[in-house]
Amino acid sequence: MDTSSRRLRLGMVQLDVTVGDFAGNHRKMQRVLREARRLNVDLVTFPELAICGYPPEDLLLNPRFIYKNLRYLVKFIQNTVNMNVVTGFVDYGEEEDEIYNAAAIIYCGRHIGTYRKIILPNYGVFDEKRYFTRGDECTVLEVCGVKVGLNICEDIWSEEGLVEAQIREGAEVLLNISASPYHYGKSKERLAQLFELARKKKVVVAYNNMVGGQDELVFDGNSVVVDQRGKIIACGKQFSEDFVVADIVIDAASGRRAQSKKDLAKSSDWFVQSIGVAPFSGYADKPHIDARPMQEYSHEAEIYDALVLGTRDYIEKNGFKKVVLGLSGGIDSALVAVIAVDALGKNSVVGVSMPSRYSSESSVTDAVLLAKNLDIKLISLPIEPLFQTYLDALSVVFGDAKTDTTEENIQARIRGNFVMALSNKYGWLALPTGNKSEMATGYATLYGDMAGGFAILKDVPKTLVYKLVAYRNSKAGYDLVPQSVIDKPPSAELRANQRDTDSLPPYEILDAILKAYVEDGQSAIGMIEAGMDENTVRQVIRLVDKSEYKRRQAPPGIKITTHAFGRDRRLPITNKYDGKI
Amino acid sequence: MDTSSRRLRLGMVQLDVTVGDFAGNHRKMQRVLREARRLNVDLVTFPELAICGYPPEDLLLNPRFIYKNLRYLVKFIQNTVNMNVVTGFVDYGEEEDEIYNAAAIIYCGRHIGTYRKIILPNYGVFDEKRYFTRGDECTVLEVCGVKVGLNICEDIWSEEGLVEAQIREGAEVLLNISASPYHYGKSKERLAQLFELARKKKVVVAYNNMVGGQDELVFDGNSVVVDQRGKIIACGKQFSEDFVVADIVIDAASGRRAQSKKDLAKSSDWFVQSIGVAPFSGYADKPHIDARPMQEYSHEAEIYDALVLGTRDYIEKNGFKKVVLGLSGGIDSALVAVIAVDALGKNSVVGVSMPSRYSSESSVTDAVLLAKNLDIKLISLPIEPLFQTYLDALSVVFGDAKTDTTEENIQARIRGNFVMALSNKYGWLALPTGNKSEMATGYATLYGDMAGGFAILKDVPKTLVYKLVAYRNSKAGYDLVPQSVIDKPPSAELRANQRDTDSLPPYEILDAILKAYVEDGQSAIGMIEAGMDENTVRQVIRLVDKSEYKRRQAPPGIKITTHAFGRDRRLPITNKYDGKI
Repeated sequence: MDTSSRRLRLGMVQLDVTVGDFAGNHRKMQRVLREARRLNVDLVTFPELAICGYPPEDLLLNPRFIYKNLRYLVKFIQNTVNMNVVTGFVDYGEEEDEIYNAAAIIYCGRHIGTYRKIILPNYGVFDEKRYFTRGDECTVLEVCGVKVGLNICEDIWSEEGLVEAQIREGAEVLLNISASPYHYGKSKERLAQLFELARKKKVVVAYNNMVGGQDELVFDGNSVVVDQRGKIIACGKQFSEDFVVADIVIDAASGRRAQSKKDLAKSSDWFVQSIGVAPFSGYADKPHIDARPMQEYSHEAEIYDALVLGTRDYIEKNGFKKVVLGLSGGIDSALVAVIAVDALGKNSVVGVSMPSRYSSESSVTDAVLLAKNLDIKLISLPIEPLFQTYLDALSVVFGDAKTDTTEENIQARIRGNFVMALSNKYGWLALPTGNKSEMATGYATLYGDMAGGFAILKDVPKTLVYKLVAYRNSKAGYDLVPQSVIDKPPSAELRANQRDTDSLPPYEILDAILKAYVEDGQSAIGMIEAGMDENTVRQVIRLVDKSEYKRRQAPPGIKITTHAFGRDRRLPITNKYDGKI
Repeated sequence: MDTSSRRLRLGMVQLDVTVGDFAGNHRKMQRVLREARRLNVDLVTFPELAICGYPPEDLLLNPRFIYKNLRYLVKFIQNTVNMNVVTGFVDYGEEEDEIYNAAAIIYCGRHIGTYRKIILPNYGVFDEKRYFTRGDECTVLEVCGVKVGLNICEDIWSEEGLVEAQIREGAEVLLNISASPYHYGKSKERLAQLFELARKKKVVVAYNNMVGGQDELVFDGNSVVVDQRGKIIACGKQFSEDFVVADIVIDAASGRRAQSKKDLAKSSDWFVQSIGVAPFSGYADKPHIDARPMQEYSHEAEIYDALVLGTRDYIEKNGFKKVVLGLSGGIDSALVAVIAVDALGKNSVVGVSMPSRYSSESSVTDAVLLAKNLDIKLISLPIEPLFQTYLDALSVVFGDAKTDTTEENIQARIRGNFVMALSNKYGWLALPTGNKSEMATGYATLYGDMAGGFAILKDVPKTLVYKLVAYRNSKAGYDLVPQSVIDKPPSAELRANQRDTDSLPPYEILDAILKAYVEDGQSAIGMIEAGMDENTVRQVIRLVDKSEYKRRQAPPGIKITTHAFGRDRRLPITNKYDGKI
């Protein structure tokens, strides 16, 4: 053993698991253990709830689900001979119906300790207090002579003194296993917080995040180890699986900073369990593994990759082989098609062109050109004969009633029926192409263009759609999405010479108001005082509020902002609140 | 003042409020105060969160909503001169972002105390820990010499000793203001618990529930005052607004049972605030008001009335004047039509007959007969020309592919488009007619028969549909729903000679399995061991599990069972759990 310093080779497994896929998750975990053995890793860690997937939601209320997770934990442990491992799982409590979001501490094939998550998030997309009991004991492991304070996800941000209690007990490394859902910019915020924590507390911080898509959530990965000076020792990839190995060296001089039990009792209410795991480092004489440089992503690249991963995982984990979507010649469907091809490959994406009497010629040719650029199959199903048949049938009832959005919606629903017919006949998943600006204002037809299984752009505002297309075209090095698609004024093409701006403010203005209202929770007054046009603000807020019933029937989509529609924002439909004080 | 006994005239306002309708709720509350004054009521009580409506969900995250609720509380208090009132409202805490589910104690126009709910439900349909901070102080009021222990909803069922602390402080009456959502049988269970509490603790129990529909929830009313011997002193109506006045008489002999402060401190951790409100009873010399006999409801009558109220409130509170629904000649649409007429009146309900090549003649004539019985308008829109046009259009793609559910779904979606066209053109709310058995097994077409704004039967199993029709026909005294509708074998009539039993087990068997699985959370093994057929059990569970994506896009409906689909049962779509241990 090197006496001048203590060394710990940490291997963090940035895993993409599937909720309830115990066997599949187990196989993945086994595979990495072999790699960890080969690399002489001293401590291998897996993300929060890695055994069963995150978030399992109400599956957690099923005792059989909990047993199965425990059975797979045991099975997993049996394969950890000569290894030290920490993994997330669901722990059973002493009382009936008590379960914990927990981390198993495994030493050479034995489950020698358990840490139970203390801070249970119950806001935004999280419902952890619905399921879990709060843990009440901090944990410090000693691995290869290095003291490691273990915690789960939110625990590390707690202001209740958890981390402080671990440090007082001598923790030199703070190890956090996590399942932290993505929104844009979050990885940078998180990294800044980890830097600050490391520098402020003078500890190494190791953050092991989950990666992958689970319904509306995407976990971004970005696992990282930061040293006491805020320098990155190792980092994981963004939006893909990774095994992040970090050589952590603790100077002999740094010494142990544990206070006496007596002092500790005085300075903290937290009971800290200390567990000795492994006295020697297996890698001490092996070559040092250097940090991979952290990759820099643009705002658009980050969001684009989140959408690709979220799409791929939803489709593959739900057992679909192909997707189908309407290609209108507009920019939204173009972006959905490009993302789908990037996620699944060109042979798994089918476009449908469904022109009407109101479709411009360029819409049809643009759809053809895009399909050609992407090399995907394009089916043509004009809706005119059906539209006319609907109008004829309904004329008996409608008589000479004025034409209005009814006739527009009929066209959108004919297209919905076509796309779903292809979906039903061939087992393809239908992808609706609406964006967040439409979803917010109700500028979309229920059972029409909203029809489908997974709404990739549900949380992507229209102005961001343009930026993502520009990013992807620039990455392609040519007009993958034809320039004419980008240039044409947005239109639903459901009546003659229609423009989105007939019904909505220009998207730059609309999206700014939507961000202020939906993401930042600003009031109308606040926005108006900040210089936004009063009529426009009130119009947009009214549209958002009265479209709640539509969103309730919308398919799931990928959360990429701080406030996605869905479980992030739970509003009643029956609601007469006018927004005023 | 009568020295031989103490008297308290309690007036409990069983109110139907609307979330966010501060002005409307305020007007209603004012109106009852006048009546309370006329009746010399000593203490008037309003339900949980009466000021703002329950549950406000994420409106509670909007500080302006909280301010407005406080402003309306002040406005309300200004009108309580010479009255003692308790009402639910949202209280602001000392810390930023801290809010409480609270009860204001109002004495002669002054807000003299506040009780803050302690037990915050966070299971089933409830998310109260997402919003509220937990109170930590029990309250005992003294009104007209009678000591009243005040608490909110779940508090009264707590095993943490809240009620015991109030009784030790001398509480002779336990007053609970509540917003307790309905499921079948709940009022009986609740009443039995209230009886037991009253007898066991030898206190009067006064339970003031909310009434009305709010999205998927119905509050059943059934407010009640039970004396120390478990006798009903007064009770409110079921599923309608009521003002429940009870004369509570406490024998002089019963005395005060408060222990000394010292003993109390020893026996309870709870801090109890004691508030003296009114020394004399205003009604002491007035004639006694006798208890109204409690009305007995059959299982079917109770559920039927819940559905009528839930329907009426959803439609009226959301500002609709009329509804439209497809009348297939089947029993589900017949029941929906009857409920809609009972809720809104015959002039507010429009039926649409949309026969296809597969519709039996009796289906068409039955729809006509039902519409005649109900005296509602019936529109006829045959779908055949559209169906043929779809088949022709799709033949280019489908070629000679085998006919399957695709062609069935196309028909359902043509009907969905027709109903929505009427909805869009005339502003009528579309009512889908599917039942819980279909919703559970996915035996319904997304964007087809699932299309609409409010799914009345979403939580009503098919076998219960039959019972509700029998109940309503028997109440009508004739075959309001024609006997041939009841007699015909269930069929979607989407292909020749189709029967529901081609795809599903008979409904008696299906519904028993669904109850065991969805409501009682039983496992396949458990059901099989209880004697159910293994293949059928596994088939049904598979159907339920794989239909989650459909339910996610279903319209809201009325919860009437212990586990409705929706926020009661939050399952991931992406989910590979096989149900095994």
